[in-house]
Amino acid sequence: MISTMVWQNLCLSLLDQTGLPHKIEYITCADYRRVATAIKRLEVRGAPAIGAAAAFAMVLAFNEYSRKALSKDSLLKSLLDAKNELVATRPTAVNLEWAADKIYAKAESALLKEIEWPVVESVIEAEAIKIHDDDISQNKLIGNFGAALLPQEAVILTHCNAGSLATCGWGTALGVIRQAQAENKVKMVYVDETRPLLQGARLTAWELLQDGVPATLITDNMAGWTMKQKHVNAVIVGADRIAANGDTANKIGTYGLAVLAKYHGIPFYIAAPSSTFDFACQSGQAIPIEERDAEEVKEFAGFKTAPQAINGFNPSFDVTPNDLITAIITEHGVLQAPFSLHIQDLQQKVKE
Amino acid sequence: MISTMVWQNLCLSLLDQTGLPHKIEYITCADYRRVATAIKRLEVRGAPAIGAAAAFAMVLAFNEYSRKALSKDSLLKSLLDAKNELVATRPTAVNLEWAADKIYAKAESALLKEIEWPVVESVIEAEAIKIHDDDISQNKLIGNFGAALLPQEAVILTHCNAGSLATCGWGTALGVIRQAQAENKVKMVYVDETRPLLQGARLTAWELLQDGVPATLITDNMAGWTMKQKHVNAVIVGADRIAANGDTANKIGTYGLAVLAKYHGIPFYIAAPSSTFDFACQSGQAIPIEERDAEEVKEFAGFKTAPQAINGFNPSFDVTPNDLITAIITEHGVLQAPFSLHIQDLQQKVKE
Repeated sequence: MISTMVWQNLCLSLLDQTGLPHKIEYITCADYRRVATAIKRLEVRGAPAIGAAAAFAMVLAFNEYSRKALSKDSLLKSLLDAKNELVATRPTAVNLEWAADKIYAKAESALLKEIEWPVVESVIEAEAIKIHDDDISQNKLIGNFGAALLPQEAVILTHCNAGSLATCGWGTALGVIRQAQAENKVKMVYVDETRPLLQGARLTAWELLQDGVPATLITDNMAGWTMKQKHVNAVIVGADRIAANGDTANKIGTYGLAVLAKYHGIPFYIAAPSSTFDFACQSGQAIPIEERDAEEVKEFAGFKTAPQAINGFNPSFDVTPNDLITAIITEHGVLQAPFSLHIQDLQQKVKE
Repeated sequence: MISTMVWQNLCLSLLDQTGLPHKIEYITCADYRRVATAIKRLEVRGAPAIGAAAAFAMVLAFNEYSRKALSKDSLLKSLLDAKNELVATRPTAVNLEWAADKIYAKAESALLKEIEWPVVESVIEAEAIKIHDDDISQNKLIGNFGAALLPQEAVILTHCNAGSLATCGWGTALGVIRQAQAENKVKMVYVDETRPLLQGARLTAWELLQDGVPATLITDNMAGWTMKQKHVNAVIVGADRIAANGDTANKIGTYGLAVLAKYHGIPFYIAAPSSTFDFACQSGQAIPIEERDAEEVKEFAGFKTAPQAINGFNPSFDVTPNDLITAIITEHGVLQAPFSLHIQDLQQKVKE
């Protein structure tokens, strides 16, 4: 499996996901600003992956400012600015904020204890590596919990990319599918191409092919007909932010799939680590939805598809209300309705 | 308004819809085989438009074979072969068969009456022109009936292209929108881009811009979220074949939109002339669904989007069951449930 990111000698190498599946190239980031740019450009994308990338970027920022800063206060101020810059790159996925906050808090508490700066750097580097490695082991747990929910002869539909590329390895929704494949339960995976940026066609199709999972690509508007004609028996997607009541923000199109799944009586699963939960956010209405440049809906790969003067609407995410969700699969187990109650329990477990 | 097709001096000029909106070019067809190729390549598309194109193609075939054939029987045999060749180009839209049958029947009955061949040619040419012109006047009637169903401040969602380009002019779904615009009722039209061939982005967006109708392009997977966030209050689409019970085949994605409209309590309208009804077809299950080359879902305007080895599924149409349809708008009026009954009445009217 090709790595989404590699951290070595204070340098983060990111697989450039905008070039896939045609070009396999890594971007070398020795400056946190380059990581911020990579997140903005979607060179690295997927809620857990951008979380880990931001954690490493915070280590780069610490390294830079600890060489420049004259005082602990100015170092912390610069670090806070770097954190805010990273968090502002993409508003919807909460893992980004969660990971950057985590590193900042670790640095702050170490600095307040008057620990020497190079030692603080080692401490936060270890924390970033832990965020990265934990993500993979959490994905494995999600995969195991999720695969147990699937029937034999599973005919699965997935959207966007919640795979190895969206995480630090293995994947959330694709982690479930990988585990189900290992258990010989996968009959077919239908992959929505996921316009406008085609993460399904470019990334998920590529991952599933590499792993030899039976997969068929469809355009997004074929999902309903495919559910009906091909007897889809599970829909599994990832998440960018889950509110305290279970409402879930994920790639645009997820909400429509959830409605279609409900109509067809198909279980609709969200697969996400606990870092994707925003326990302070009461419902989906409070989740900020990123809107990207309308040009993205008017073109692909630089080819203009529509008349230049037409308006476009380009929300990157939508919110699926909890009543359309059958279960949320986390590293701590499978949550079902009433979600508010079970998400409170999850919050307790995460605190412990 | 730019003409979809122009018939002059035994030659059919077809606006090449594959080049739109970037290139405006006509294809000159003096041979019925070139018309068949144009239908296959989607240079001309839209159920009513390919019906009229096939009618003119039958006149071209008659002209060619009446110069070659040695007997009435061999002329009729060649004409039948040409008809079958035309009908085989695209299986789902019934207007194609309807129009070609109509011209063939007219030629056959005239030949059986021993009318001279050049006169027969004039008779069937007049019939083809009538099919063409009737389509436009029927579209106008559909527009009037449909616009009356829309609320003030209509926020409409449409799919694919059921416009001037899909017909002989004016349009079915877009005919309704054009009339509503003339009545100052249109607040916004959301246009699904309609993958894989982007008829929404390339054709509908272009038509609405030309007419100054407020329009916003979205990717297909945004339809559900747009219905919810933008308070869509009507969905209107065209049709390729309507069964005797009201089940409707239309561009892939229509079925999913109908499910989404139902969930959001939005009326879902089909706009189509009576030539789109297949009275002999009892339900949607009997409608043949064209599957096109899977390559179409793996590329975007010639740019390969997915790994070459991935499977694709590419149904061009789907079937919306009658219980998801609020009304079918025809040139004879608006049909509502129970559809079987009202479609029987329509069949009577058409016979008269």
